[in-house]
Order: sequence, then C-alpha cells, then structure tokens
Amino acid sequence: MRIPLSCRVVGVVVSLLFTYCGRLSAGVIDNHVDQLGADCQLPDALVQEIKGYQPIVNKIVGRIVDGEFAGKTWDSLAELVDTFGARLAGSEQLEKAIDWAVGKLKEDGLENVHTEEAQVPHWVRGYENAQLVAPFKKNLPLLGLGYTVGTPRGGIIADVIAVESFKEFEKLAPEQVKGKIVVFVPKWEGYGKTVVYRSKGASVAARKGAVASLIRSVTPFSIGSPHTGMQSYDDDVKKIPTACITVEDAEMILRKYRKGETLTIHLEMEDRNMEPVMSRNTIGELVGTTYTNTSVVVVSGHLDSWDVGVGAMDDGGGALISWKALTFLKAMGLRPRRTIRAILWTGEEFGLLGGKAYKEAHMENEKKEFNFFFESDIGTFEPKGLDFSGNKEAECIFREVVKLMSPLNATEFQTPTDGGPDVTHWTSRGFPGASLINKNEKYFWFHHSNGDSMAVEDPKNLDKCAALWAAAAYVVADLSVAMPKDVTDPISHLDL
Amino acid sequence: MRIPLSCRVVGVVVSLLFTYCGRLSAGVIDNHVDQLGADCQLPDALVQEIKGYQPIVNKIVGRIVDGEFAGKTWDSLAELVDTFGARLAGSEQLEKAIDWAVGKLKEDGLENVHTEEAQVPHWVRGYENAQLVAPFKKNLPLLGLGYTVGTPRGGIIADVIAVESFKEFEKLAPEQVKGKIVVFVPKWEGYGKTVVYRSKGASVAARKGAVASLIRSVTPFSIGSPHTGMQSYDDDVKKIPTACITVEDAEMILRKYRKGETLTIHLEMEDRNMEPVMSRNTIGELVGTTYTNTSVVVVSGHLDSWDVGVGAMDDGGGALISWKALTFLKAMGLRPRRTIRAILWTGEEFGLLGGKAYKEAHMENEKKEFNFFFESDIGTFEPKGLDFSGNKEAECIFREVVKLMSPLNATEFQTPTDGGPDVTHWTSRGFPGASLINKNEKYFWFHHSNGDSMAVEDPKNLDKCAALWAAAAYVVADLSVAMPKDVTDPISHLDL
Repeated sequence: MRIPLSCRVVGVVVSLLFTYCGRLSAGVIDNHVDQLGADCQLPDALVQEIKGYQPIVNKIVGRIVDGEFAGKTWDSLAELVDTFGARLAGSEQLEKAIDWAVGKLKEDGLENVHTEEAQVPHWVRGYENAQLVAPFKKNLPLLGLGYTVGTPRGGIIADVIAVESFKEFEKLAPEQVKGKIVVFVPKWEGYGKTVVYRSKGASVAARKGAVASLIRSVTPFSIGSPHTGMQSYDDDVKKIPTACITVEDAEMILRKYRKGETLTIHLEMEDRNMEPVMSRNTIGELVGTTYTNTSVVVVSGHLDSWDVGVGAMDDGGGALISWKALTFLKAMGLRPRRTIRAILWTGEEFGLLGGKAYKEAHMENEKKEFNFFFESDIGTFEPKGLDFSGNKEAECIFREVVKLMSPLNATEFQTPTDGGPDVTHWTSRGFPGASLINKNEKYFWFHHSNGDSMAVEDPKNLDKCAALWAAAAYVVADLSVAMPKDVTDPISHLDL
Repeated sequence: MRIPLSCRVVGVVVSLLFTYCGRLSAGVIDNHVDQLGADCQLPDALVQEIKGYQPIVNKIVGRIVDGEFAGKTWDSLAELVDTFGARLAGSEQLEKAIDWAVGKLKEDGLENVHTEEAQVPHWVRGYENAQLVAPFKKNLPLLGLGYTVGTPRGGIIADVIAVESFKEFEKLAPEQVKGKIVVFVPKWEGYGKTVVYRSKGASVAARKGAVASLIRSVTPFSIGSPHTGMQSYDDDVKKIPTACITVEDAEMILRKYRKGETLTIHLEMEDRNMEPVMSRNTIGELVGTTYTNTSVVVVSGHLDSWDVGVGAMDDGGGALISWKALTFLKAMGLRPRRTIRAILWTGEEFGLLGGKAYKEAHMENEKKEFNFFFESDIGTFEPKGLDFSGNKEAECIFREVVKLMSPLNATEFQTPTDGGPDVTHWTSRGFPGASLINKNEKYFWFHHSNGDSMAVEDPKNLDKCAALWAAAAYVVADLSVAMPKDVTDPISHLDL
C-alpha cells in the first residue's frame, strides 16, 4: 500500500481523510475506541436475519481453512510471484501477470472476467549506487523513489546536510543547502506521519538548491535493507535525484553530521521516467441471483507492486484473497443475491491510478452500481476483524456482520476508516466499505523492500483471511437490504 | 564471530571442539543441562573468600551501570564505528582504527599499551551484481564470501541447479552440474550446522564442474538482506566465485527449480585476493599488584569486522567491553593481584588469525603467562551469565565467581564451552576460559550483514556487559589462588 495523496494535501480539513492519515501516523493500525454500537436501532428482524447467516459462515470458514481449499490461496500466490516476480506499473512483468490472472480467474469459473484500462507511468530503476567517500568509505545501500530522476552521468559528489525534520531544515539558509545532498533522518512516528519525508523530501530540499535528497527508509525496524516508495515533485522545483537509504546509515550520518564532521557522498542513479503506458484492472465476478450488475459488492486488492522483493505482501495477498474468495464461494455453490466483483487494481503504488481510472469509467451510475467496497492492502497476516467506513445505519448492519466472524476469532470492529487506499475513491465520498484488520505489526518491516516475499506469507493465515473475505462479502451481498449510503459527488480539489 | 576452523575438520573427534560446534548448531546458544556443581569440593575458606568479593562487585556494577561510567561504552563504540566504519582485515580502515584504539587506550590510562603483529589476508570486495534473467528479471542482492575469486570480465551467465543439502547434491552426476551455477538452499538448523554450506559450498560445487556457487544467507530471519562470511576453497578444486544471496531469493529459486523450471542467472563479481598484509593485535593492561606479567587474565574481543555494516555487534561490542572494563577498574582505583590484559584481536573473521599469531608468539611460556581467557564475540545484548571451559577444579571456583553477578541478574552458568572463537587457541588445550551469555536470540539476524550497526547496540546493555566483564575479570585476577588448568601441548593437525 501507499499513503493516499490526500494525506499530503496540507490544510484541507476533511475529517474522514485526516482520520485515515492520523491512524496511519500512529502506527500500522491504531486501536480506536470501539464504540459499542449501543445506539444502533436496527429492526429486530434484520438482526435476526444477519444472525441466521452463522451456519453458512461456519461452513465457508470450515471449507477454506480446514477443508479442501486449505493452502490453495498460498499456492496461487506463490505461483503468481514465482512466475512473474515483482510487478511494477509500466513493466512487462505486470502485464504478463495480468494476462495470467485473467486466464486463472476464468479457469476458476469466475464470471464476466475482463480487464479495464488504466494509464500508468513507466518509471524505470536503473543502476543505483551510493558511497560515503569521506570521512571513510562505506557503501550505502539505497533504493531510488518512484518518479525520481537520475543523476548526471558519473554521478554527483557532494557534501551532506543532515536533519531530523522539516522544521530543522527550515532554519537553514539556501546558501547553506545549495549544492549539497540533503539527508532527512526522521524518527519513526508511524507510517503516515513519517512517510511525508519520503514523499516530499526531494521537493523540500530542491527548493533551497540541494542537488539530491536521501531519506531514512520508512520503517520501524531494519536489517540493513533500504525501502522504496512513491514521491512526487512539486511543480515549481527542480527535479533532483532522491532515494531511501537504510535506517542504520541514515542514523550514522546524522550522528556524524551533528558532531560537525564533513561527510561526502558519491551518488549514481540511472533511474528514468519513460512515456506512460496503458495497464489494466483485472475483474471477475460471481453474478448475483437477484440484483444482477446493480448493487455490486466489490472485494479488492492491487496486483501491481514495487520492483523490489516480489510484492507477495504488498499486495499479492490482498489481491489473492479477493480473487480466491469468489473461487471458493463458486466451488461451494454459494451464490448471493447481489453480484460480488473481485477487482485486482493496477497502478496502485504510483498513485491509486487503477482505482482512479475505474472510478472515472463507472462514475455515471456509481450510486446504483456499487453497494459496498472491501479492500485488503495492509497485510494478510492472521485476521482480527474488519474496520468500516460509512453512515451510521450501514455501520449498525456491518457490526452485526462482523460478529459472525467468531469462528475465525476475528470479530474486532473499528470505525471510522477509509476502507483502504484504492477504495478511498469511493469511501471518502460516503460509499460504505471495509478493510481487513490483521496482526500486521511487522508490516512495515518488509514494506517496499527486498523482504516482501513469500517468506512473509503464512498459508494458514492466508486461508483465514480468504475465509473472512468470502464470508463477509457473501453476507453483505446476500442481505435482504442494500447497504445504506450518503454519497457526495466528487469535488475537484479533493478528487483522488 | 565466525565458526572455528575446527568445526569444519570432518572426522577429527575432539569432544571439546565438537561440543562447541554442536552448540552452535542448535541455535545461538543451547540451553545446556546446568550441572549444579553439587560435586564441587572447594575448601570452605575459598568459597568464603569468593563470597567476600560481593561488595566490590556491587560497587563495580553500580558505578558502570548507574554511575559516572553509564553510557560511556556505547559512546566509545559509536566513536569507533562512526569514525572508521567497517574494519575488514587488510583494509586501511582497520589499521587506522587500531592506531586510534592504541591512542585511546593510552588516554584511558591503560598500561603497557602496544600492538603485536599478525599477518592477515587482503581480500577486496569489488563490484558485485546478480540478476535472475530468466524466467523473469529480478535483481538478486548478494555478498561475495571471504577469499572468493571474481567472475571473468562481463560475468557468468549460466543455468541454475538448486538443492537443499549436500546430500541432495551428492546424487547429481558431474555432467548435470558442469557449467551450472549451484544454489544451496539449506534450511536454518542453527549457525554451526548451516554455515557449512557457506564455508564449503563453493568447493563442493566446483568438484562437479560448477562455474559458481550461491548460498542462502546463514540467518534464521531476513528482510531481504544478504549476509557475508568466510569460505575456504579445498586445495584440489578450481576456485569458483561464491556469494550469499537472500533467504527470500534462495527459497524462491529452490521452489521454481523443483517445479522443473529453467532458471538463468547473470553473475558479475569483481572480488579479488591481494597479497597478505601485516595487521596488529591491540593490547593494554591493568598491571597486577603481586603477580606482574605472570598469570595474566585476558579479556578480549576482536576489532576487525566484515566490510558490510560497521561491525558494531561483531565484534565492536566485545572489543569495547574488554577495553572499557580495564578503563573503569583503573578509574575506580581497583587493581587486582594479577594483571588483566585487554586484547583486541585482529583478523578474526578471516580465520582467527590474530589469536593464532598471538598464541605462536607467546607459546614458550604460555602455561606460566596465562591464568584465564575471557572472550566476548557472540553479542553484547543484555547479559545473562558466563559459560566456562576448563577442568573441574577451575569450574568449581568459577561457579562461585558467577554467583557474584546477581546485581546484574546474570548468574547463568554453562559448561562446557570453548570460551569464544579466538581463545579456542588456548581453551581447546585446557586453559580455563569463559564467554558472555547474553540475550542474543537475534544475533544472527544482523550477523555479517548491513544490519550490523549501532542500532543493534543498547547503551544500558553495553554498560551491563562491561560491568560483568570488569567484575568477573577483577575477581578472577585478584583471587588468592590461580585458576587450575590441565594444559596439553598443541598438536599439529588440531592446531587452530
């Protein structure tokens, strides 16, 4: 996952978006006050109707976690990442993975399998090398950030300015910064709060004449691995090369700099931006018995990844449980009243671009078309429950749905939430949605690094996540009532 | 630390050495049956004498952990690694660090500060790059291993043979292996057992005509970081390039290979072996009041490191507590009857070479010269106690000494042990010695990787380790009796 653009829109006070940013800021997922829902006034018949789904939930969980589907989600995820590796937006590997997914969704019996186009950037990582050349020689493992430009041929050799915060940097005069490599070494204060240094470090540094910007990797724990991720240049600054270095090296540089030492770095980056290319969201359905193609329940994760590691965690797992939830329901002969639609987003890492294109293509009838949005993009470790975004009435219904997840010991309920980065295109405007709460305390250890591999994914936990996904989507899609919503139209300056 | 050469001498049944190898095999440090020492028959007067040191131990602990020395060990370690970075044997950085250490030991008031020569190899890591080129492109982070040769110019492009074990590899015919890159993907079964793939993988692969060998990094946990370390070529095989890749990539390669896929790797390594150079062990003393320069108590760690990370953990911490133990005792005016000698070994990582040279130079009078050997080379996390190697009588005395460490909650006692890699030159022949038991469960996460940095070291834990070191060395050096020993002369084929 990446931080939504909205978290970087300073000064726009939109409580829902800022709630999301704030939650990320404090850690992976904060423990929110769990309002007990005591003020819910659902009709007793509806409460009883939802409770009536318990046997079917039990059956779904039993078959996926302990039955014939056990281990299948991990196997398919391993096949995806072992066959195609990382799936960077704009890469041939991503498009091949999409072709493969289309074939597999069809093989699994999903219906209306197709793709829908979304334009994505084509940024390419080239040779990257950084060396501390004075006061002693040390290789500095690094990863260039999304959209970064490269260095001139032969690289840049420059002295370092190291700061812990933008506030500290503000105090520096442009003549102190000009021609320097600025190293930002923010303390880890949760992803949402810390990631602004990665997102905006280059622009902030360039504004005072820096020639490059290096940032402490955005992670609470490190074993000498750099982490990549998105950044965006402000329109009015010179584009300078920017990369994340390891926590260890960043902290050492800051310590040395503060002692008054002169540090010199040789930075070589051959990263470059090519022409944008067309990619695709991958879609498959379990068509409803009653409300065909209206009031769709979306289950989703993104198929693209960063180009390091293999994107098993971010977001192979989320994509796979979304796809397999439908596969398993279909194989069990369970077809709800509403259509469940699995969407494997493209271009998420470069700005939620698959979701954006999908939103625009479906905007005209969106209120009619969409009932509920599930997204999993914060790990598929052991599931704990679901968090929710939507109006009070929908919340009360969804609270009852989450209670059904007791066989998985996953009845935690949190609200508000944005429902996940890609679906903020809808949930930020009042559509109801939910995302997976899971034991993802180590998520950012691996996030956007070479550590994002199958080693992070546990077959049993993937089964549990898939079971939760299938069961929750099935119940929401089958209820006698549609999920209530108070939808606002897109507003241009908030438009994700 | 590295695995002693002895662990790789197959078929030489020397129980002490094999005990050490076996202990490493099972994890960082096994929990041994802690013989209660019920069969100890120390004279009551001696037991009472040792108990009498409790106030002085309390004072040492108080001053180092909570008094004016608190934090000093971390500060000096940070100064070492921040000033010189990694300290590979043969490098200018190591020799500069030795010069610095000599100056600092003198500044701290240590006595007889000097260096003693030890020849070390001069292996140089060059440009290293590995790419999976088929069936998809993936950068494979790697670290060449000690003494490895480079590839021919332009690198090697070859298909892969992947195996989990030497046993599996044995079944392959040379014609299957010839011209291939062999990837060894052993399961983690503790360091001692797993490291043989790193030590011997290249020779085993070369024997059947492989052109290179890649090994799963020797660690139980990974975030996409490769780990380096020693390897040695058998005399009768062709020297082929060899490196460790990440756990994640190794496991993926094995999975794909076992599915029958053809994997191709492009490997470029410009590593090379230069002429050996002269390095130095660094020595400083707190001269005893009574037995001057006979019956010396050695406290030691190694100053050299691998060339990745900065060697803060392996073994900056061990070297620093050995040096600072003397600094603090001296500053407290505590001078024992015997001399305590801090030795900061050189060339440990390339074959315990500093210890070897020191042993040879001091062999003539060694029985008279040395009383006891402390070594810390398995982390300086929170201390738990001391493990011991030596005869029964010495063991009984040392058990009583360890009981004094209760103010540090570090009274764990284990035996047998080798006392640490460098001092196996002596402890394997009957000299008594001890090494630090500490909460080093994560030691191999960082070992020989870019993660070996100050971030691993905690100031308070370093204080506690330094206090334990100072207190234990003081008591052993001050006792009315010398440590009993049954020393055997070096035997050539076991000679470390």
